[in-house]
Amino acid sequence: MELQRAKGTRDFLPEDMILRNKIVSTLRKVFELYGFSPLETPILERLDVLSAKYAGGAEILKEMYKLKDQGGRELGLRYDLTVPFSRVIAMNPQLKLPFKRYQIGEVFRDGPLKAGRYREFYQCDVDVVGSKSFSSDAELLSLTKNVFKKLKLDVVIRVNSRKVSNSLFQAANVPENLWSDVLLTVDKLEKLGEDAVEKELLGNGIERKAIEFIMKMILIKGTNDEKLKTLDKELKGKQGLEEIKELLKYESDVVFDVSLARGFVYYTGVVFEVFLKKGEIKSSVAAGGRYDKMIGEFIGRGEYPATGISFGLEVIMDALKANKTSILKTVTELYVIPIKTKEESFKIAEKLRLDGINVDIDLSEKGISKNLDYADKLGIPYVAFIGEDELKKKKLKLRNMKTGKEEYLAVEDIAKRLTKDR
Amino acid sequence: MELQRAKGTRDFLPEDMILRNKIVSTLRKVFELYGFSPLETPILERLDVLSAKYAGGAEILKEMYKLKDQGGRELGLRYDLTVPFSRVIAMNPQLKLPFKRYQIGEVFRDGPLKAGRYREFYQCDVDVVGSKSFSSDAELLSLTKNVFKKLKLDVVIRVNSRKVSNSLFQAANVPENLWSDVLLTVDKLEKLGEDAVEKELLGNGIERKAIEFIMKMILIKGTNDEKLKTLDKELKGKQGLEEIKELLKYESDVVFDVSLARGFVYYTGVVFEVFLKKGEIKSSVAAGGRYDKMIGEFIGRGEYPATGISFGLEVIMDALKANKTSILKTVTELYVIPIKTKEESFKIAEKLRLDGINVDIDLSEKGISKNLDYADKLGIPYVAFIGEDELKKKKLKLRNMKTGKEEYLAVEDIAKRLTKDR
Repeated sequence: MELQRAKGTRDFLPEDMILRNKIVSTLRKVFELYGFSPLETPILERLDVLSAKYAGGAEILKEMYKLKDQGGRELGLRYDLTVPFSRVIAMNPQLKLPFKRYQIGEVFRDGPLKAGRYREFYQCDVDVVGSKSFSSDAELLSLTKNVFKKLKLDVVIRVNSRKVSNSLFQAANVPENLWSDVLLTVDKLEKLGEDAVEKELLGNGIERKAIEFIMKMILIKGTNDEKLKTLDKELKGKQGLEEIKELLKYESDVVFDVSLARGFVYYTGVVFEVFLKKGEIKSSVAAGGRYDKMIGEFIGRGEYPATGISFGLEVIMDALKANKTSILKTVTELYVIPIKTKEESFKIAEKLRLDGINVDIDLSEKGISKNLDYADKLGIPYVAFIGEDELKKKKLKLRNMKTGKEEYLAVEDIAKRLTKDR
Repeated sequence: MELQRAKGTRDFLPEDMILRNKIVSTLRKVFELYGFSPLETPILERLDVLSAKYAGGAEILKEMYKLKDQGGRELGLRYDLTVPFSRVIAMNPQLKLPFKRYQIGEVFRDGPLKAGRYREFYQCDVDVVGSKSFSSDAELLSLTKNVFKKLKLDVVIRVNSRKVSNSLFQAANVPENLWSDVLLTVDKLEKLGEDAVEKELLGNGIERKAIEFIMKMILIKGTNDEKLKTLDKELKGKQGLEEIKELLKYESDVVFDVSLARGFVYYTGVVFEVFLKKGEIKSSVAAGGRYDKMIGEFIGRGEYPATGISFGLEVIMDALKANKTSILKTVTELYVIPIKTKEESFKIAEKLRLDGINVDIDLSEKGISKNLDYADKLGIPYVAFIGEDELKKKKLKLRNMKTGKEEYLAVEDIAKRLTKDR
């Protein structure tokens, strides 16, 4: 039998995992700086929960993995983290609102495979439920800015409001029942270009005059203030614009982009999407917005205003790799090569670990050249030789694997030398 | 519809997740100190991989969750991390051996539910493949010791060797085909007591004289050296004893326990199991051993000597909770209450986050007493009031929620005060 992976799944070997763990710990660190606490829900959910009326839509439900337990209970693998989050809110009325949580975990979608699309992948979601204030949206934008600053990725954050889009469609005299169609079409601007969008809008049954007005407004250029000023003149519904103005007071380092639509129908207020400024990657690295009705509708009672953002772990990985972020194949910082001093070297390795150095040691006595080859292939930055001579001198021979430079150092000085480069 | 969880699954609210994350990061930190690198494999595996001949046994296979994708492919949810690890070894011949990896992730077993048993739970596995040296076993013991030292749990590490057990059964003249039965029975000593074990051995078809000898040896008292001396006299096969002696040279802080059997048939050498010294929890908190044949047999080619240990995240959680480790309901360290200074307070919160403090802020202006109640219920250690007066003074009013003590502090001094308590 040939051993294979399930279709659409991946293994993450250390060289990928070390980078992934670094990204995840950066995300967690920043999420917690903003007072978001960790939450975890199971991967297995009841089918009735997963298939309850949900604004995520029929598309997603079609791609759900379904199974039964031995008791015949119908189950599914979660396809996002929002439905389980809503279930947790429903089942835990004792939770103090606003409830700020983040969750990082695998989700499953049995859909078509394309480049960068997998059937098992991570979502990294940050949401606050129970706050109507758009300063919560501003907080998420500020969090987002800091995530990418820490990751050293240069990004632009685009914002808009579903309310602005609605006022725009209203001003263009589009009948309300067509707003969501128009929105979905406008959402394709980046991908299809102006001509194709205009054509599709015609196909949607929108009048030429309305299309002209919509296109003019979504393609509007200038500073945030200039855009706001123009729209102020053209639109009757001002609430969206007022909210954008308020938002900019808190977080000015964003671009107001009237073309930003975010396809999902569940958004009710501010929407945002984050793109890399440089490089080949055109898809967004994070996106989110306010969805004041979805959780309450899902639960079937109460009001749960909410806003959130989701970070794309896979695309962030790709971006960091493209930036030539150094790829490590091992966590090991120092490789100890005992030369007939295995027992003593073992104890020295112990000491170095207490100093906080990640130490591996050759326990199989495979010889110096094989050991150097091993350390080299794994990209371990330093090796230390420990022979009788070194034990007598009470110093190790430390070799920098990059420069080839060797020096004798006392055990207690090793940590200082190695952490200098961190 | 009432929203419910799937049977045998759990949600982890922040008060559990904060502790779990702390344990997991301690495990990871120590694993990496010993040069073990992270690996991750998918949760979905092909059914043929999961049901391949595997020493884990038919019990586990019976409890596997099975499903199909839309292409009709037969899949299962992984029930341990060892089978996927073996698959990764088989599919990646480029990996340099010895390969040291750790993996922390969910596994799934559709089995009967008892206290502390769930259908979706975590395994935390550390394994090295490609090293025959028992100093690898010693390294795992040392790693284990340091994990529990960092977790501040007082443990005893019991060790034995499958080779010692085999020599014992040989010296007792038990026919070789009954060794594994005897081993499984001896494994129940702790749970059933001496009488029940003797009875079961009789039922296994073992002679009274053999049983007497076996019981005497597994109940042997004294220091490690005393036990080794006695066994040296009684057993003909010495290899196991020699290895234990060598092991003790590297790691003396363990208890040689001849009764330790570790039920699984796949162990071939040293076995170990870790127990808490104090408290109500009698089940092991970590366990493992050497399994030199399993991976090679699973892959169907080559030799892959291996040794590993698995840490019990759930039982460690329980132990830390029983130790009254302080339970936090939030990661937030400081809660900012703006008094008509929302915009300025928002910016001050930003500054404090840059200083590394986890800050939450009231964005809904719900009033001082409601805010104090919120901070109190969540167990946030500090709140800061920011009103017009504070802005003028350029100082915040910081309140210690435990002592009630209030003081005025400049923004740049807050971080120092708060991290003092960490």
